[in-house]
Amino acid sequence: MSRFPKVGVIGAGQLAQMSLAPAAALGIELIPLANSTEDSAAKLTPHIVGDYKNLETVREFAKRCDLVTFEHELIPISIIKTLEAEGLKFLPSSQTFQYSQDKALMRQKLEHLPAPKWQVVTSAIDWNYPAIAKSISGGYDGRGVWKVNSKEELTNLLKEEPKLLLEELIDFDFEIAVMVARSPHGQAATWAPTRTVQRDGICIETVAPVPEFTTVQSESAQNLALQIAEEIKLVGVMAVELFVKGEQLFINELALRPHNSGHWTIEGAVTSQFEQHLRAILDLPLGDTSMTSKWAVMGNILGGSNNDMYRPYLHLMARTPGLKFHQYQKEVRPGRKIGHVTITGDDLVELRADVLHALAYLSGEIDE
Amino acid sequence: MSRFPKVGVIGAGQLAQMSLAPAAALGIELIPLANSTEDSAAKLTPHIVGDYKNLETVREFAKRCDLVTFEHELIPISIIKTLEAEGLKFLPSSQTFQYSQDKALMRQKLEHLPAPKWQVVTSAIDWNYPAIAKSISGGYDGRGVWKVNSKEELTNLLKEEPKLLLEELIDFDFEIAVMVARSPHGQAATWAPTRTVQRDGICIETVAPVPEFTTVQSESAQNLALQIAEEIKLVGVMAVELFVKGEQLFINELALRPHNSGHWTIEGAVTSQFEQHLRAILDLPLGDTSMTSKWAVMGNILGGSNNDMYRPYLHLMARTPGLKFHQYQKEVRPGRKIGHVTITGDDLVELRADVLHALAYLSGEIDE
Repeated sequence: MSRFPKVGVIGAGQLAQMSLAPAAALGIELIPLANSTEDSAAKLTPHIVGDYKNLETVREFAKRCDLVTFEHELIPISIIKTLEAEGLKFLPSSQTFQYSQDKALMRQKLEHLPAPKWQVVTSAIDWNYPAIAKSISGGYDGRGVWKVNSKEELTNLLKEEPKLLLEELIDFDFEIAVMVARSPHGQAATWAPTRTVQRDGICIETVAPVPEFTTVQSESAQNLALQIAEEIKLVGVMAVELFVKGEQLFINELALRPHNSGHWTIEGAVTSQFEQHLRAILDLPLGDTSMTSKWAVMGNILGGSNNDMYRPYLHLMARTPGLKFHQYQKEVRPGRKIGHVTITGDDLVELRADVLHALAYLSGEIDE
Repeated sequence: MSRFPKVGVIGAGQLAQMSLAPAAALGIELIPLANSTEDSAAKLTPHIVGDYKNLETVREFAKRCDLVTFEHELIPISIIKTLEAEGLKFLPSSQTFQYSQDKALMRQKLEHLPAPKWQVVTSAIDWNYPAIAKSISGGYDGRGVWKVNSKEELTNLLKEEPKLLLEELIDFDFEIAVMVARSPHGQAATWAPTRTVQRDGICIETVAPVPEFTTVQSESAQNLALQIAEEIKLVGVMAVELFVKGEQLFINELALRPHNSGHWTIEGAVTSQFEQHLRAILDLPLGDTSMTSKWAVMGNILGGSNNDMYRPYLHLMARTPGLKFHQYQKEVRPGRKIGHVTITGDDLVELRADVLHALAYLSGEIDE
């Protein structure tokens, strides 16, 4: 057998799960470091169970692999730095990955690029309220983000969380994300910018390409993502989340890994974000990111009143034969992302209606 | 967690491997019965190791699953019949699956449909030589098939194999395959007929749709496949291999499982043969079989002088960014199918050139 690389991934959730097929197709051995055998990817493939916060565990794990990558941002950066100093390989490296863990550091690094006004605060200050306050690290899906209406509210919040990133509240028109990939060689590629639709801070739907965008706006968003990738020396894929207000773009968040806003690339692009991430971290030439159809619409399946995700197939598959289901092998809990659906085609109105219907039917909101 | 079915598959080669991703996406637990932990799918997923020729082994395996399907035709039909009588579920059922195991039975069942003239022989007979002689069961990839030039040659062959299927040698223009899916409910669907290109009896390349076909010819081939599916009460997917001579079609072989001639459906169709097989055996509504692009070209990677299947990525991925690789996690041996590549797009001449280049480069025949 020829020598295919072994890639370790910190985490065994749905992102690791969706990386399994492209890894196997490329002959790459993908080994998740799981919290438990019940994790999404752990149910499906040989894995290691261990605590990513334990230096010795991560060291032993990394030694089994040619390189290690990440499915989430929760591993302490000190562990990565220690093991890098010992010659073990993490991609993205700690030097790059830190910008996904520390929002203040990211704001500082990208200070010359368009973003909301920001300031790190440890005590309440005079500011243009209402504003947004964020945890410096660890927040996602609406957690660790607060709307602060007054100096008093900030004072109260700081009692709970003593250091916060305070940001200008942008009265944006809508939100988008640009997925970008970059290899150690510096080859980089983006996919079509993606409109993201949020409810209560959680992304519920994406549409690619952004329906509201002109070609110029689309290229401008892609160029911004490419510039950020270059500046932080990205290796792998990254989601750049942006606010759009008129012709202006504002950097919101970075995620240095495959991301929910790129799930549509499995069916909707020649090369998916999951395959591209592997190509990038292995310094293989990047794949074609062209779309395979005019539109790709994705909807997140959130846990609702219905616990049975299988029986709905009987109706949904008959009604919408082009709908693609992605189950994350997770227990159904209210509001939890337990899967997603994707559909591609020419008629955006119809595609969005199909996705919204499927989500409502799966959650039990409607019964036909 | 809601109740997703457990599907057992007899065999853990590349067909089981390529079924893992659609099974996981649908939430279906797919459990291969492997010969060894080194089998393609066994390397990638939890599995059972055991001998499919052992009744007790297959019984215990089937009891763990809601139903069992097949990746190859080698399991003794007597085992399936015995376990069906005990209430265990196999799909396709023995009643249907027997037509993929016994070529004489298949010829008899489909006697009224267009096929080469045939006869089962145990002694040499006068016949229109040269003719084709086939093993009644077990042959594939050119094995178990002989060109017989005279009665004397048949006499000699019968000394080795006492019972043969003798068939008229069709001077065909080319060969095609039609993939068809059918569910227990009787819902059926076909994909675009596929041109198959053989070398030494082994398929080396496929092109979908068949470039030489008119719409009428294409529909006629699809209708023939649908008719066969109905007559043998197919459940699952089936490849119908056909000879084409002018406007005429002749049934060559049936394979009652996902098939090499349908590998292009992973990238080239909205629903792949692997997903569709699962939908069909679970009696779920079938998925959309439309093509996602004008052409899909697949090429089989056969073991050659080059043992390293990873290093060629550096050149091939840079040269052809839309090329998709599928490695079967198998040791490289001369002539062995160890993987395939697929490309989709608009320009057939270019796509075929890209695939043939990739195959030559991977095998070591060319070095740029």
